[in-house]
Amino acid sequence: MEWINKSKILIVGLGLMGGSYAKALKRMGYHILAIDAKEESISYALEHGIIDEGAAFPEEALISQADTIIFALYPTLICDWIKENQKFFKSGIRITDVTGIKTAIVYDIQSVLREDVEFIAAHPMAGREVYGVENADDRMFRNANYIVVPTEKNTEEAIRWCEGLGRILGFWKVAVLSPEEHDEMIGYLSQLTHCIAVCLMTSNDNPHLSEYTGDSFRDLTRIARINENMWTELFFMNKEALLKSMDGFIDELCELRDEIRREDAEAIKEKMRLSTKRRALFDKNNS
Amino acid sequence: MEWINKSKILIVGLGLMGGSYAKALKRMGYHILAIDAKEESISYALEHGIIDEGAAFPEEALISQADTIIFALYPTLICDWIKENQKFFKSGIRITDVTGIKTAIVYDIQSVLREDVEFIAAHPMAGREVYGVENADDRMFRNANYIVVPTEKNTEEAIRWCEGLGRILGFWKVAVLSPEEHDEMIGYLSQLTHCIAVCLMTSNDNPHLSEYTGDSFRDLTRIARINENMWTELFFMNKEALLKSMDGFIDELCELRDEIRREDAEAIKEKMRLSTKRRALFDKNNS
Repeated sequence: MEWINKSKILIVGLGLMGGSYAKALKRMGYHILAIDAKEESISYALEHGIIDEGAAFPEEALISQADTIIFALYPTLICDWIKENQKFFKSGIRITDVTGIKTAIVYDIQSVLREDVEFIAAHPMAGREVYGVENADDRMFRNANYIVVPTEKNTEEAIRWCEGLGRILGFWKVAVLSPEEHDEMIGYLSQLTHCIAVCLMTSNDNPHLSEYTGDSFRDLTRIARINENMWTELFFMNKEALLKSMDGFIDELCELRDEIRREDAEAIKEKMRLSTKRRALFDKNNS
Repeated sequence: MEWINKSKILIVGLGLMGGSYAKALKRMGYHILAIDAKEESISYALEHGIIDEGAAFPEEALISQADTIIFALYPTLICDWIKENQKFFKSGIRITDVTGIKTAIVYDIQSVLREDVEFIAAHPMAGREVYGVENADDRMFRNANYIVVPTEKNTEEAIRWCEGLGRILGFWKVAVLSPEEHDEMIGYLSQLTHCIAVCLMTSNDNPHLSEYTGDSFRDLTRIARINENMWTELFFMNKEALLKSMDGFIDELCELRDEIRREDAEAIKEKMRLSTKRRALFDKNNS
């Protein structure tokens, strides 16, 4: 198992997610390198023992040591970063990422990448409503899913390797999906829910709501504190799947509204029984 | 302060909420009487020391002892129960409830009630996705709001008394709203969120969703396990306010969908900044 060779791992982009990866992997004994444009993030991580070496620019000396590279950058930046810096990559290394959408980037990355290096995409389905390496905390992986997202270009070895990475990071469950399956699923489970949370906060301007709110509203809007640049980018990169999810959900909610309007109790109860049954399965499967 | 007179409290309807009230009040030293049509609920509560006396029908001997009556029944049942049994009420007692909607019931109750007895409505904004006295647990009150909902018929003394009840039950915050304000607020914060949670579960029939779901989807659908009879009744009794909330939310979500469709990044980011700002205020105020 390659993860036993205490190899060197380079994390590009040292924010909340990159920092949490660094913490988990450093504890396992790996030598952690990091590159982040924010000088303070690197200093903080060095001072707090989160990484072993770091730089605020793509330094050859750092990149060329890496046996593994993990991209935790904004999705649109990864491909250009690779184009500019892959000349420094050691031959035969493996690269992965943490990006929340896949079809819009994975094929592009694989097509520009050097032939002697393999990129295998992954999506750690974990997050918090805070940012930066200062808030890094790999405990958020414990109850979360890790999804390996291979294309036809990937080798079986790389897929197994990436599943292993998810496991040593401490994820609760590791799964494999195609980029298309992944994006459709994420459009529904993650992007649609963020749209709903945002709209729950913006569609009512009563300043007293927060004084009376109960647990359910708090739960539904926790993710309404949102990084607008990253999420707008993610929405556009998965536009088709997200719009399909939104259309389906809006249709369903309009149907329920019409059932309430005409007091069709049986139709409403039927929906509630279905939702209760499906949600019970979630609790059984997940928590 | 009247709550010091260890008086007798009758709870009518001994489910999750009635049982949780019983636990909290019994611990404070009150003598707890209970009536519930389910014989097993009464036996369970007696065996587990949750109540002192109980009956499975409206027994005169029990009702006539009560200094306070708390209704934790289905909303549509309260008025009839009062009409049939108020002949047993001691003169001068106070009555309150736990119902999630107010305009549809409070005025009716006050108009049928004997002149020598006062009904002051209240809504404990707490709940769990389980039912029955077996799951009663007054810890759910700790982070929750308790709303006293007086009409013009209520006395200042009864309002203060009802606020005191919220406090001794252990609620985090006690507030006062009119029935109309309450119902508008609840239509948005509670009923709309339950509609959303239900539709999130019913608008996608992919059986694998639960395998990949992250925290955000789990949070948004926790309340999708729902008592269909009670909630359908609550929806109909607050139909106007709920439909207004649903219309506003659907309009906002459609607007966001159209912004995503035409890739209007600035409009989307503006919504996200507003939602982030408003949600941050919630965290400050509430948890």
